[in-house]
Amino acid sequence: MTDYSPPLAGAAQDETLELRPKFNADGLIAAIAQDATSGDVLMLAWMNAEALAATLATGRATYWSRSRGALWVKGETSGHTQAVVEVRVDCDQDAVLLRVRQTGGACHTGRDSCFYRVVGPDGQTLSLGAKSD
Amino acid sequence: MTDYSPPLAGAAQDETLELRPKFNADGLIAAIAQDATSGDVLMLAWMNAEALAATLATGRATYWSRSRGALWVKGETSGHTQAVVEVRVDCDQDAVLLRVRQTGGACHTGRDSCFYRVVGPDGQTLSLGAKSD
Repeated sequence: MTDYSPPLAGAAQDETLELRPKFNADGLIAAIAQDATSGDVLMLAWMNAEALAATLATGRATYWSRSRGALWVKGETSGHTQAVVEVRVDCDQDAVLLRVRQTGGACHTGRDSCFYRVVGPDGQTLSLGAKSD
Repeated sequence: MTDYSPPLAGAAQDETLELRPKFNADGLIAAIAQDATSGDVLMLAWMNAEALAATLATGRATYWSRSRGALWVKGETSGHTQAVVEVRVDCDQDAVLLRVRQTGGACHTGRDSCFYRVVGPDGQTLSLGAKSD
C-alpha cells in the first residue's frame, strides 16, 4: 500500500513543497496527459495512490481503470506507452499533469489524442478537429 | 435547465457527431483549460450541464464551483477571464478541453497556471517548476 501525507488546509496546500495528493471519495485523482513535445493534451484518466506511486517510480504512466477496477499500465497491451518526462500537481493537489513521450496513439480509438472532436457553433454538433498544434 | 442527449454505448459514443456529455454521479464533467497560444495546461475544473451550455453560448469559460455549490464565471470577480477559442470533447465525452485566451493568471494563487509545482525524483517533494513551454 502506498501512503501519502494528507492534504493541508487552504493556502498551506497551495504552497507546500510536499506531495500531498487530494484523492476524491473514490480514492482517485485526475491525471491529464500532455505530449511533452507538441503540447497537445492527449487524455484525461484517473489514478489511485498505487497508480501515482507506480508512475513516479517507473516513469511509465500508470492509471486506475474505473471500468475494469484494476491498475492500468498505459500501453501494456496496445504498446502505446507513455514515457513520463515530468509530473506536476495543481494548487490543491487534486489533479496531476503528466508531460509524456507518447508511443503510438494515446486514444483507444487509435487517434493521437482523445480530444479529436470539436464542438460546433451551435453548441450541439461535433466535427473532427484538425490537430490542435 | 439545459438538456443534452444521453451518452451512447461503447464505440457509438466515441464516433457520434452529437454532443452527448457523460456527466458523473454528481452531474459534473471534467474541464481542462489550455492556453490557446502557449499550449500550457492552465487548470482542471468541473462543469455541470448549465456551465457547459453557458460556456458554449457565451464564449466565456464557466464552471461549477464544487466548494461554493454555484455557477462560476471564470474571472467574474478576479477579472482573470478565459475567452474560449475552441471546445473539444474526449472519446467517451466525460471530459472537455477548452482552448482559451487567458487574461491574468489562471490560478487563484495568482500564478499563470495551477500546475506550478513539479514532483521531484524522490516522488515526494515538489519544486517550483519553470514555465512549461
